[in-house]
Amino acid sequence: MSLLLDNPFQELPPDRAVDTDLFLETVSHIPSFFDCLGSTVFSVIKSDINGNITKIRAVYLKDPAKYVTLQAIVEAERDAHGAQWPKVGATLALMWLKRGLRFIQILLQSLADGERDENNPNLIRVNITKAYEQALKKYHGWIVQKIFRTALLAAPYRSNFLKALSRGEEVKEEDCLANVRQFLVNYTVTVDAIYEMYTNLNAELDYAV
Amino acid sequence: MSLLLDNPFQELPPDRAVDTDLFLETVSHIPSFFDCLGSTVFSVIKSDINGNITKIRAVYLKDPAKYVTLQAIVEAERDAHGAQWPKVGATLALMWLKRGLRFIQILLQSLADGERDENNPNLIRVNITKAYEQALKKYHGWIVQKIFRTALLAAPYRSNFLKALSRGEEVKEEDCLANVRQFLVNYTVTVDAIYEMYTNLNAELDYAV
Ligand SMILES: CCCCCCCCCCCCC/C=C/[C@@H](O)[C@H](CO[C@@H]1O[C@H](CO)[C@H](O)[C@H](OS(=O)(=O)O)[C@H]1O)NC(=O)CCCCCCCCCCC
Ligand SMILES: CCCCCCCCCCCCC/C=C/[C@@H](O)[C@H](CO[C@@H]1O[C@H](CO)[C@H](O)[C@H](OS(=O)(=O)O)[C@H]1O)NC(=O)CCCCCCCCCCC
Repeated sequence: MSLLLDNPFQELPPDRAVDTDLFLETVSHIPSFFDCLGSTVFSVIKSDINGNITKIRAVYLKDPAKYVTLQAIVEAERDAHGAQWPKVGATLALMWLKRGLRFIQILLQSLADGERDENNPNLIRVNITKAYEQALKKYHGWIVQKIFRTALLAAPYRSNFLKALSRGEEVKEEDCLANVRQFLVNYTVTVDAIYEMYTNLNAELDYAV
Repeated sequence: MSLLLDNPFQELPPDRAVDTDLFLETVSHIPSFFDCLGSTVFSVIKSDINGNITKIRAVYLKDPAKYVTLQAIVEAERDAHGAQWPKVGATLALMWLKRGLRFIQILLQSLADGERDENNPNLIRVNITKAYEQALKKYHGWIVQKIFRTALLAAPYRSNFLKALSRGEEVKEEDCLANVRQFLVNYTVTVDAIYEMYTNLNAELDYAV
């Protein structure tokens, strides 16, 4: 019924460790989010995120018992890769994946909060731009930033986007936004926990592509 | 030594049938071509082309004896898929792949022919633009066309591009261009043969993404 609530993120345990298997299972439904944006332009982003997930899963499957949490993977790679780390393996894939997840989080939160361009109430460009600026812009060089501004022209109308999030069903806007808010609770906690882990382990990089 | 001549395309037989196995083996080295353009912006194109090749190979491997030539695959899919065809399976993947191959062909031919912008002799924008206009532009909507014009700003200098084609070795420009010309002979014949097959089988589509 709702793209987001069909596969909700789980509550984290008290130590806020993220279970790798559960995370991979839940997050693998996220790339379809980009289909809700409509244009094939966004399929490129979908592939990038799918690539991140595939890479993390490949590492996990080498030793599921050892890699029970995301942190266990990142620490093992730190110990194994020396100076190359953290620009390597699942550590790099998760570094970028979390930025895509943060982008989605901020975009959805902004919609749930009712932020909008009063002159163009059925556009979501302000919401997408806010999410881009906070989650991704600093990791993109000026050419990719310029490509972003062009891609923004392919963004769907607000009403169509909300309808796509509800899998095409005619759901009242308020009901759809209520679903979004419910989804965001555990989702945000999970994304925050991954960011915190990267800070604590000194695993974050700020090079731009 | 030379990216292009390490894995040259083979001469076609008199009936100009393209052997699937040989084609897949040779063409799988082509995506690295986009690394020669330098910027990560082009890695997106590399993934798209890699995706095409993976899709064709997956179909081939289901029955290598049946799918000895590319034409055998396209015909089998035509017979199997009814109205969905040709926007389906390996037929669709090869439809797009051949456009990427044509793009590379025209770009290299233009460089080999010495076409250049006299005011900016060390840029290859005129060559890339020519290739784009002849091979791809009509299959792209206005937003992707605009993204192309932005991506063009990330194109490398002519000298760096030729050096990358020679795998970083200091090769004289004339020697590099001689390699390009030699590569283009069988490459062009192969790409032409695939285009001709699409025309003959009425497998070509002209929708824009
Ligand atoms: C023919 C004409 C066209 C010409 C070509 C045009 C090409 C245009 C390309 C623009 C960029 C597309 C987005 C992809 C960007 C990616 O480059 C970055 C970094 O990507 C990372 O790079 C690492 C190495 O540095 C590893 O390979 C990671 O891979 S690894 O798994 O192997 O470790 C990989 O994810 N990901 C990103 O920036 C992530 C993007 C996330 C989501 C963004 C949402 C934005 C929504 C916007 C809505 C308006
Ligand atoms: C975060 C900020 C960024 C925001 C997001 C920005 C995203 C920008 C995206 C721009 C487009 C990138 C290029 C990819 C374009 C692709 O969309 C097209 C069609 O792609 C085909 O589509 C089919 C379905 O219609 C199947 O899925 C095919 O897949 S299938 O195998 O499954 O059947 C697939 O190849 N391929 C193309 O146009 C082919 C391109 C070939 C090479 C082009 C060389 C150009 C060189 C340019 C040099 C200056």
